[in-house]
Amino acid sequence: MIVVGQIRKGAYFDSVTLMRVGKDIAALPGVIDAAVVMGTKSNKAILGSSGLLTVEFTKANDTDLLVAIKGETETATRSALGAVDGLLKKTVRTTTNASESRPATLGGALTLLPGANLALISIAGRYAGAEAMRALENGLHVMLFSDNVPIEQEIALKKAAQKRGLLVMGPDCGTAIINGVPLAFANVVNRGNIGIVAAAGTGLQEVSCIISNAGAGISQAIGTGGRDVKKEVGGIMFLEGLKALAKDEQTKVILLVSKPPHPEVLKRITKVLKSIRKPVVTMFIGASSTTLEESALAAVALSRGKQPQELAARNAEILRLAHREARKRSKRQKYIRGLFSGGTFCAEAQILLLPMISGVYSNAPTGAAKPLKNSLKSTKNTLIDLGEDEFTVGRPHPMIDYSLRNKRIIEEATDPETAVILLDVVLGYGSHPDPGAELSPVIRQASRKVSVVCSITGTNQDPQNRSRVEAALRKSGAIVMPSNAAAGKLAGQIIQSLGKK
Amino acid sequence: MIVVGQIRKGAYFDSVTLMRVGKDIAALPGVIDAAVVMGTKSNKAILGSSGLLTVEFTKANDTDLLVAIKGETETATRSALGAVDGLLKKTVRTTTNASESRPATLGGALTLLPGANLALISIAGRYAGAEAMRALENGLHVMLFSDNVPIEQEIALKKAAQKRGLLVMGPDCGTAIINGVPLAFANVVNRGNIGIVAAAGTGLQEVSCIISNAGAGISQAIGTGGRDVKKEVGGIMFLEGLKALAKDEQTKVILLVSKPPHPEVLKRITKVLKSIRKPVVTMFIGASSTTLEESALAAVALSRGKQPQELAARNAEILRLAHREARKRSKRQKYIRGLFSGGTFCAEAQILLLPMISGVYSNAPTGAAKPLKNSLKSTKNTLIDLGEDEFTVGRPHPMIDYSLRNKRIIEEATDPETAVILLDVVLGYGSHPDPGAELSPVIRQASRKVSVVCSITGTNQDPQNRSRVEAALRKSGAIVMPSNAAAGKLAGQIIQSLGKK
Repeated sequence: MIVVGQIRKGAYFDSVTLMRVGKDIAALPGVIDAAVVMGTKSNKAILGSSGLLTVEFTKANDTDLLVAIKGETETATRSALGAVDGLLKKTVRTTTNASESRPATLGGALTLLPGANLALISIAGRYAGAEAMRALENGLHVMLFSDNVPIEQEIALKKAAQKRGLLVMGPDCGTAIINGVPLAFANVVNRGNIGIVAAAGTGLQEVSCIISNAGAGISQAIGTGGRDVKKEVGGIMFLEGLKALAKDEQTKVILLVSKPPHPEVLKRITKVLKSIRKPVVTMFIGASSTTLEESALAAVALSRGKQPQELAARNAEILRLAHREARKRSKRQKYIRGLFSGGTFCAEAQILLLPMISGVYSNAPTGAAKPLKNSLKSTKNTLIDLGEDEFTVGRPHPMIDYSLRNKRIIEEATDPETAVILLDVVLGYGSHPDPGAELSPVIRQASRKVSVVCSITGTNQDPQNRSRVEAALRKSGAIVMPSNAAAGKLAGQIIQSLGKK
Repeated sequence: MIVVGQIRKGAYFDSVTLMRVGKDIAALPGVIDAAVVMGTKSNKAILGSSGLLTVEFTKANDTDLLVAIKGETETATRSALGAVDGLLKKTVRTTTNASESRPATLGGALTLLPGANLALISIAGRYAGAEAMRALENGLHVMLFSDNVPIEQEIALKKAAQKRGLLVMGPDCGTAIINGVPLAFANVVNRGNIGIVAAAGTGLQEVSCIISNAGAGISQAIGTGGRDVKKEVGGIMFLEGLKALAKDEQTKVILLVSKPPHPEVLKRITKVLKSIRKPVVTMFIGASSTTLEESALAAVALSRGKQPQELAARNAEILRLAHREARKRSKRQKYIRGLFSGGTFCAEAQILLLPMISGVYSNAPTGAAKPLKNSLKSTKNTLIDLGEDEFTVGRPHPMIDYSLRNKRIIEEATDPETAVILLDVVLGYGSHPDPGAELSPVIRQASRKVSVVCSITGTNQDPQNRSRVEAALRKSGAIVMPSNAAAGKLAGQIIQSLGKK
């Protein structure tokens, strides 16, 4: 076995050409493995892990072409090396030997296709911004596939587009489907009445495919690039896209997909959402355990005029509340203390919180949660099941006897590291006849220092009356969520928001 | 301030009586805090943390009554102590002074109410089993609220009940709603066409309330006690409950709630499910990130004849596949290696896996995932986004160029600690024209050693044709799931199942 390496100083080829040549070389007789790549730091690391890094390669830089061949014999290896130049030439010729006209400039393209209204730009990042600006000046929408466009340029482009009523999708926008035409990485999906705005490329592909495979379809799918929802860009195109879909007659349901937007951007999105009559499903990856698939199917149900589950639509509200609560907390406050009377609630809350925050402990650990050493002493994020034996032997169940939990609520609220106290309140026969009266004084005291997040399990027909209990808890300063799941997600989101402060 | 403690040797009172007396004492003038509890280990720990533990209490045991009072002055404290006996007598009198007849034995109760067909048993665990057997012998269904019933007794009771066509709900069954009558801890909910079997008490309360608050209703809600779905009991009553609901004409939709059943129990449940024509929603807490609320609302949608999302129903299938794969793996195999071409998929998989397994690392960490030191070297459960810069500078995107990922698949499959390789396959314009051909040989090789779990993003109209790619991947040994979310959940579930081996 022999490895041969060669450096071609300043020889630039695009990555698809290099991939093809590399594959062709590797397929030659007597060749075990081969790589034809530019001499970037990461390529060198990859060559190293494949046993293709030679000593001279370490001195090469980004603009050098590296050729590495591992062969069975010296003859086979040398012969493969000799084939590289021919293959490079042939491949470049093939990829550029298109049967259609290929104008070299934007101006040339516009002469060929004067009715065009969108430019797809996919050149090196440092040149892409200027070309995109030229397209906007010519009245074209822009899809900017390129990455490595400076953020200042992105902001300038998007502001210019906004003034002209044009869209700039990207930079680093991998996917869009406009008027049924898939752009860049995109799938062939049914046309339909669901409009998508996404700051997540493959996220957009997944939801549009799931929608199409479920028999529904896409009106427009607008990608914005991932940076659009960050503070600097301020969500300019996410908002423009949303407004465009709100106006679009073909669009009956709107689906928003992105990583959690910056709080200020979220505020703007929430404001626009309030003015939109169409149902909107929001999917903020990582802010909740909702999956892309669930959001897509919720949009499908809505597009068929079926009653929405409202669950996906709730995500935006949870984020908004979380940012509001996070603003009230100090820097030292960073943990959740969950005090549950229901064992299942304690388990469900762990499952929901584990992906959102680290350091989750419980006296009844589930999944990847860690066991608590002493049930009477919280550490980091602690979720206590007060129905466990250590609390109930010789005592009534915590759904009946609130005294132990009330004491613990005050204790946790006094800990300067507690940010959120998470509670379940279970109504019904057998439970305490008036949880509102039991909890109100304690919540009033605790909510001065920490966020108190509750859920209530019960109905208005229950002896305690759900609405009455809810009103009492709210009045004393608690945030009451519609389910244990929603309460758990809010608690986790508050901690995430605090982490970004 | 003064703390006074008193031990009453062998004086037993039930916990609700003691709670009431403790509260009355604490409300007396000059009293700061008070506790009247049995001398269990855990009560002593709680007294300690409240500053109510005196030295002599440490010598007391389970059958001793402890009275502890913290007062402002010695006079107030002593006077409160003097009031304890009177309050105990009065409270016991009140709680037993019922206006209705209170028979002392099961026989007496049956004489009073000869038409009864269900006995609710809530006495100390060591006596409860015998009483429950007597009830079964009299042809009564049993709701066994008591805990601390030995598991051998539970098995004997359930087998006896099964022979007679009777139900034993419990032991430690907190909740049931039979023919509209709420038993023990239960809520007043609408009657309707959704039947529930639950091995999770508060879980049953939450789903029944959410269903009722959403305007739908409950036909029957059968609790089994949490141990029923464990290996020893074998799911006897979970299966009997399921079969009863399958036959019940009022029940149109069935909702199953429990912690993940033992694999053998799950096999039996799956077998019964196949014979049932009614839609069934399964919610296994901790086995997926589906929430109680989502499952409840899925059941509501189904009960209204709306197309099911099928998501909740998929959980049972995921568990089944996971157990199957886990059986094929060795003891040393314990980690997931996820190799993603889509950044959003890598993020979503992290969010789904974090609650299920510990030690989740990524080169693009999201939520509570830990950063990977070296993208080229996996550690524990590692999810790699191959679209990150370190892999794509000077190289085509991994959706086009499969070579790097293919190498890594083989590398990970060779690691004796790898149990699952998790992959996304993205179709559409721009992506590789034949991912099936690229991946098949590699998957064939890898799947001999590890479980290969894939999802495909794409449609049958895409140039690559989803069904064709799916067939190729399956043929080469991959498990193909309908979404990235489903694939991620299965991968996590395999690891959980392995942990229980």
